[in-house]
Amino acid sequence: MFVGVVGAGQLGRMMALDGYRLGIRFRFYESKPGAPGAELAELIQGDYDDQDALGWFARGLDCITYEFENIPSESMDFLAKRHPVYPSPGALEVSQERLKEKNFLNELGVPTAPYAAIDSEADLPAAMAKSGTPAIIKSRRLGYDGKGQARVDDASTAAAAWDSIGNVPAISEGYVAFDRELSIVAVRNIAGEIAYYPLTENVHKAGILRLSIAPALAADEALQAQAEDYAKRILEKLDYVGVLAIEFFEKEGELIANELAPRVHNSGHWTIEGAETSQFENHLRAICGLPLGSTRTCGSSAMINLIGDLPALEKVHATPGAHLHLYNKSPRPGRKLGHVTLRENSREALLATLPQLLAVVCQGEVTLEDLDLR
Amino acid sequence: MFVGVVGAGQLGRMMALDGYRLGIRFRFYESKPGAPGAELAELIQGDYDDQDALGWFARGLDCITYEFENIPSESMDFLAKRHPVYPSPGALEVSQERLKEKNFLNELGVPTAPYAAIDSEADLPAAMAKSGTPAIIKSRRLGYDGKGQARVDDASTAAAAWDSIGNVPAISEGYVAFDRELSIVAVRNIAGEIAYYPLTENVHKAGILRLSIAPALAADEALQAQAEDYAKRILEKLDYVGVLAIEFFEKEGELIANELAPRVHNSGHWTIEGAETSQFENHLRAICGLPLGSTRTCGSSAMINLIGDLPALEKVHATPGAHLHLYNKSPRPGRKLGHVTLRENSREALLATLPQLLAVVCQGEVTLEDLDLR
Repeated sequence: MFVGVVGAGQLGRMMALDGYRLGIRFRFYESKPGAPGAELAELIQGDYDDQDALGWFARGLDCITYEFENIPSESMDFLAKRHPVYPSPGALEVSQERLKEKNFLNELGVPTAPYAAIDSEADLPAAMAKSGTPAIIKSRRLGYDGKGQARVDDASTAAAAWDSIGNVPAISEGYVAFDRELSIVAVRNIAGEIAYYPLTENVHKAGILRLSIAPALAADEALQAQAEDYAKRILEKLDYVGVLAIEFFEKEGELIANELAPRVHNSGHWTIEGAETSQFENHLRAICGLPLGSTRTCGSSAMINLIGDLPALEKVHATPGAHLHLYNKSPRPGRKLGHVTLRENSREALLATLPQLLAVVCQGEVTLEDLDLR
Repeated sequence: MFVGVVGAGQLGRMMALDGYRLGIRFRFYESKPGAPGAELAELIQGDYDDQDALGWFARGLDCITYEFENIPSESMDFLAKRHPVYPSPGALEVSQERLKEKNFLNELGVPTAPYAAIDSEADLPAAMAKSGTPAIIKSRRLGYDGKGQARVDDASTAAAAWDSIGNVPAISEGYVAFDRELSIVAVRNIAGEIAYYPLTENVHKAGILRLSIAPALAADEALQAQAEDYAKRILEKLDYVGVLAIEFFEKEGELIANELAPRVHNSGHWTIEGAETSQFENHLRAICGLPLGSTRTCGSSAMINLIGDLPALEKVHATPGAHLHLYNKSPRPGRKLGHVTLRENSREALLATLPQLLAVVCQGEVTLEDLDLR
C-alpha cells in the first residue's frame, strides 16, 4: 500500500513510524518547510489550494488521509476524485463547521452544551438567551488553540465579543461547569468493524492539552459504554473510516460532547506504548482495508506534552517506564515539541511515579491536583 | 545526535524507526541497492572497502554503529579515526574470528564446546581428538547461515570435510547434544551501566532462526544469573558499548556459549512490543551517551520469522496480540522478509494463542513441539 498523508506534522510522522512496520509506503503533502515528517518519507511541498502540486502528490497513491482539519474542501474534492480519501470529505466537513457539528450531534442524540447560531447582530439577544451565560462566542470555521473565540460573562457584552472575532458567522455556546475533561478514540475500518480505546482524562491549560491519563481514573463501565455508544452513532452515520476522537465534558456522571477530531488525536498518543495496537497503526489498518488491531491496554499510561521548550531530557531518559517522543521541531512558545508517555503495569504504580515526571516536564504548571483522583 | 549506521538491512531499519522518536537523525551506508532502511533515511551506497564513499558517509556524524559483522577491519579503522565507533572495532574483531572468539571466552571462564585450531592437514588428528566427534569444522572468518561449515561424524572423514570448505584456516568444534538453545541480549552504555533482557529460547531450522520465546520457559533465576554473569564479563573486558547478543546451548542446566553477535539481534526483536524499552532503543541510548531504558518485560512474547515467502497476512492481522513487521524485501528462499511478534499478558495466554499463529506462518514446519515446554 502507498498512502498519501496531507500534513507532515507530528501526527503524520508518528503514523509513518508505525506504518513502515506494516509494509506501507508514505508520501506527505505539506505547505511548510522542515515539517516533522519530512526526514522520513517522500514529501511534496505546496499550498493547500495548489492543485498542480496536489496532482503530483496524488500520483500512484492507493489512498489518501490527513492529519489536520484545515484543508479547503475544494482540495479535498480534487483529491477524492483521484483516490479514496479517508475519513471522507463529508466527515471532515461536519467537523470543520461548528454549527453543522453541533446540529449533527444533537440529531444523533449526543448531548452538547446549549448553543445558538449568530449570523447578524440581531441574532445576539436570542442566542444569548438560548446558550445562557457565561458563554463563548466561537467562529463557525475552525480556529487554532482558542483563536476565534471570545468569552461572554454577561449578555450585554455579547456584541463586543462578536466584534472581537470579526463578526464572522459564529455560534454562542453555553459554558459547561464540567467535573473533568474526557475523550474517546474510536476507529472504524472499511468493512465497518469498530474498536474503542478506553476513556482518557485530559488536562488542558490555556487551551493546550498538557496531560492525559488512560484509562481515565474511576471511569466505570457505564461511562465507557455511554462514550462508545455516542462514538458508534457518529461513526456509522458518517460511514466513517479511520480514527475519530471525541472530546467530552463529564458533568455529574454524564458525558457532554465538546468537539470531534476526524483524525488521530493528541489524547491518543499514549496508545503507542499503552495499548496493544496504537491509534496510528489502527488508523492505517482501517484505511488500508485491514482488520483492526486489539485496543486492549497494557497497564496504565500518562502522556505529558512537551510545550514551548524541552525539559531536562536526561531526567526523562532516567525515569523507568518513561518514553520520550520528539517531533524534530524548534522551540517556540506554545508549540508542541514532543511528548513523554509513562507506562506502568498498574494505576497505583503510575500515580506513584507520575509526580516526579510532571515536576521535571511541567515544573509545577501541571500536577496531580489537576486530575480527578476520586 | 546524528548516527551513522553501516548496513541498511532490517536491523538498521528497526533501529531508525525507534531512534526517530528520541530525536536522532540517521544516515546509512550500504553496498546493495533497495535495502530495507533506504526508504526512511539518508543513504550512501558504496562497497565496504570504498574509502571515498565511507568518507562521505562519515561527514558530520556524531558516532557510528553497524548492523552486521562482515565489515573489513581497514574500513572500521578508517571510520574510527573520524568518529567514535560503537561497539569498538576491537569488539567486532573478536566476534569476526572464531578462534579468537573461543579463546577469548575461555580466558574469561565462559564455557564453550571443546575446540581446536586447524591450519594444516597435519593439525587434523589432534584437532579431532580434542573436539571429539561428531564435530563441525568451521572456517574461522564468518560465514552466513551455515556456509563455511562441514560436519564430521568420524575422524577419518575430517580431511574431506576441511577440503569441502576450501582448506581455509578453521576450527573443529565438538558437537553439543544440547537440551535447547537460549540467548541473552545485554547492553552497556558509555558510562558503563549494564542492563539485561531475560533469556530467550530459540528454535533454528537449517541454520535459520524461526521462533523465539521470551522469557524462556522455565528459565530459573540461577540460569538468568549465570547468563548475566557471562555477559558482564564479556562486556567489561571489551569495554563494550551497545547491544551484545550471546547465543548459548543449554545442557543439563548449564550454559555453553555458542556465538557472540556484536549488534542488535534477531532473538531480541520481541523486545519492540514485549519489553519496556526495545533492544534498538537501548542500543541507541547506549551509543548516544544516554542512560539505559528499563528492560522489564510486558507479559510474554513469541517472535516468528517470516522466511522466504510471506504467509497469509490477513490471518496475522486478525490475530489479537500479533504484531507484523515487514522489512520491504522481495521474496527469495531462505530470506528473512519480516517477523511477527505475539505478545500476551501471561505465558499461559501466549501458549494458548501461539499454535494457531505458528500454523499460519510456518505451515507445520515449526510447532510447539520444538519448544522445551518443561
